[in-house]
Amino acid sequence: MSKQKIIVVGAVAGGATSASQIRRLDPDSDITVYEKDRYMSFVNCGLPYYLGNVVESREQLLPMTPEKFKQKKNITVKLQHEVVSVNTKSQTIEIKDHTTGKLVKDNYDILVLSPGARARHLDFDVPHLFTLRNMEDTDAIEDYITTNQVKNVLLIGAGYVSLELLENMYERGLSPTLIHRSEAINKLMDQDMNAVILSELDKRNIPYRLNEEVVSINDHTVTFKSGAVEDYDMIIAGVGVLPNSEFIQSSGIEIDDKGYVPVNNRFQTNIPNVYAVGDIATNHYRHVDLPAHVPLAWGAHRGASIIAEQIAGNKDVVFQGFVGASIVKFFDYTLASSGVSLKDLEQFDYDMVEVKNGTHAGYYPNNTSVHLRAYYDKTSRRLLRAAAVGITGVDKRIDVLSMAMMHRATIDDLTAFEVAYAPPYSHPKDLINMLGYKARQ
Amino acid sequence: MSKQKIIVVGAVAGGATSASQIRRLDPDSDITVYEKDRYMSFVNCGLPYYLGNVVESREQLLPMTPEKFKQKKNITVKLQHEVVSVNTKSQTIEIKDHTTGKLVKDNYDILVLSPGARARHLDFDVPHLFTLRNMEDTDAIEDYITTNQVKNVLLIGAGYVSLELLENMYERGLSPTLIHRSEAINKLMDQDMNAVILSELDKRNIPYRLNEEVVSINDHTVTFKSGAVEDYDMIIAGVGVLPNSEFIQSSGIEIDDKGYVPVNNRFQTNIPNVYAVGDIATNHYRHVDLPAHVPLAWGAHRGASIIAEQIAGNKDVVFQGFVGASIVKFFDYTLASSGVSLKDLEQFDYDMVEVKNGTHAGYYPNNTSVHLRAYYDKTSRRLLRAAAVGITGVDKRIDVLSMAMMHRATIDDLTAFEVAYAPPYSHPKDLINMLGYKARQ
Repeated sequence: MSKQKIIVVGAVAGGATSASQIRRLDPDSDITVYEKDRYMSFVNCGLPYYLGNVVESREQLLPMTPEKFKQKKNITVKLQHEVVSVNTKSQTIEIKDHTTGKLVKDNYDILVLSPGARARHLDFDVPHLFTLRNMEDTDAIEDYITTNQVKNVLLIGAGYVSLELLENMYERGLSPTLIHRSEAINKLMDQDMNAVILSELDKRNIPYRLNEEVVSINDHTVTFKSGAVEDYDMIIAGVGVLPNSEFIQSSGIEIDDKGYVPVNNRFQTNIPNVYAVGDIATNHYRHVDLPAHVPLAWGAHRGASIIAEQIAGNKDVVFQGFVGASIVKFFDYTLASSGVSLKDLEQFDYDMVEVKNGTHAGYYPNNTSVHLRAYYDKTSRRLLRAAAVGITGVDKRIDVLSMAMMHRATIDDLTAFEVAYAPPYSHPKDLINMLGYKARQ
Repeated sequence: MSKQKIIVVGAVAGGATSASQIRRLDPDSDITVYEKDRYMSFVNCGLPYYLGNVVESREQLLPMTPEKFKQKKNITVKLQHEVVSVNTKSQTIEIKDHTTGKLVKDNYDILVLSPGARARHLDFDVPHLFTLRNMEDTDAIEDYITTNQVKNVLLIGAGYVSLELLENMYERGLSPTLIHRSEAINKLMDQDMNAVILSELDKRNIPYRLNEEVVSINDHTVTFKSGAVEDYDMIIAGVGVLPNSEFIQSSGIEIDDKGYVPVNNRFQTNIPNVYAVGDIATNHYRHVDLPAHVPLAWGAHRGASIIAEQIAGNKDVVFQGFVGASIVKFFDYTLASSGVSLKDLEQFDYDMVEVKNGTHAGYYPNNTSVHLRAYYDKTSRRLLRAAAVGITGVDKRIDVLSMAMMHRATIDDLTAFEVAYAPPYSHPKDLINMLGYKARQ
């Protein structure tokens, strides 16, 4: 292979892993990673747990530095370097160096886009309003809490990160309040199954209000749509994300109407030598013929690996698509799902079966109930989606059902799932088997 | 369907479930179950845990009685009725009624054999030597322990039931000692992974000796092959089982050289109106083309369901074979495997990959290490077997890999397993993904 010049935009999960995987297969290519923020490879999913003092040290969130990356992998990472435009004809990019304010240029043979998404911001200008998306946000929140002896925290939005953050704020000893603008909290999950989220809040006397919004913030006093007026030491908004794709808007790289970048099963954009991975990329489902946007960590790592294989010439290593697995811990409970989103489900003529049963043999102690369901196409009987909620045994069932969906299993196939059974683990007929038996015609 | 006369031999997992499932699909047939022992439908897998006082009451082991079965399902169960011969020409059976000692006859249209296996007995005639296989054994052991203030218990054999029993004897406050005639303990598992069994024993100062056998028992004094002479209050032998197939030896029903009954994918024996299920039956693997004998609870329940569908005329509901999943808890550890047995593995030209990693993100607390491995065929790259040992997360990985093997997945397919990831549950690259990545060529 001739020595190629590869540029990667973004040095978090998708970008840093792409660079690293490309180097693994090709010791010679020239790899440069541009990252607009101050840190590379921070552990996104650990940020709420760091703020809850569950993660012991800040260093654990930052396993990699540009210096180490250079030394170990001969990859150049330039932090605070924001790629501001791409010219796919000349194969050049413009970069704003935020340390100097200057524009610089670079050129590529292959471009890998992993710029991610950024937090949406609410339109209030107060110093105690934060979002949680990156390491800078995390440091700012931590600093504000300790410097200002924060006690009451308003959390706006009830997506999975906000829920993790709420739990961590509470466990840290702060008093969180949650509001959400609709009743549709934790949108990745079936809404009725989200009832445990509210009961977990009730159990701990944590205030929450649905169909609630902030109207105005005057110093620490917040006025709500409901008419409530309350004081908060701190406000953290988790009200969605926006794709960082403005810099490619006139590049000829296709962007969809939401600002995300469609890729094929090689993670190529419409421009063959431009790949996209991570939150910015939209792909397709594996088990059904629909586009899928699954902006989670697994996909970033998987995409990085496939891009590296493609660049190395292993053209047959392609992505077979997402099943869309996700999971969140909320206090004592685990909520997980896999398969098409609830919105995509509406494109099918489907049936649903569900079972509530102990996670293991009834006579064995420490049993807890799992509520497990599966949706399947009425005609093909193929599994479309599964969801589960409970205290233990939830991750196992959803992971097994993800593997089933990967193989386009039908609901009937679930009767034949051979569970590893002993009393502490399952039943001779597992809940997964029961789903199949319940769907018998 | 005309009213059929169905006879089931054996009223434990395979037999009672078969009867119950047959009734579910056919309200009219005449169903009689003959059981040689005193109890029906006892919960086999719970027996060690009952003896450890983990299962709270004896009633929990006996969820069903002939009276309830008759009332709820209109199925006749005759306990202490041992079927002693079968005539497949005349479709008649002879039954010994152990309550009267008399021989009686019955006839069938369809016969379902679920006589199970019995414990092998050691050739020593002392009143404190027991086996653990059924409810009578359990009662006898419990009675002996309480009546004789048992303290020291010798356990002979280190199969999974003996290991469960040892743990329960210890947790109950007794002092168990384990011996095994070879070094091959817990044969369902990879031997090197069984090292945790020995370390768990060492941790608790529980004595054990491998390559050890009992030579003689003189009252409570036991003389061993090693020369050791020790006193034990009680001895429980778990030294294998023997199929209860003597009663069909001259029936024309095929029996293999070990005494088990081969069945096809409808659980039919060579005689089309005679089915066999449970420990007595040998079947085939699902993911490879080899016979499989998997005498565990899941197969008994699955077989029962398929037999009922077959009898009801649903000929297309067939068994696709075993993957051979098994699991055992031993103190803090879980040991599990799936796929072909270690012996059957030798029929393949295989490679093995393995990974040792925390069950979830390293920065999240309460992490424990899982040792996971997979064997695959060098040519087809199809998964043959998987095994795992660890404190948590073992059942999940093996269940996912069972689902993969059900679909004849290759080792390479594991890279595409979309794990449900959040820090408390897994990694963005799960251990299962790592197996696939490690096998890259």
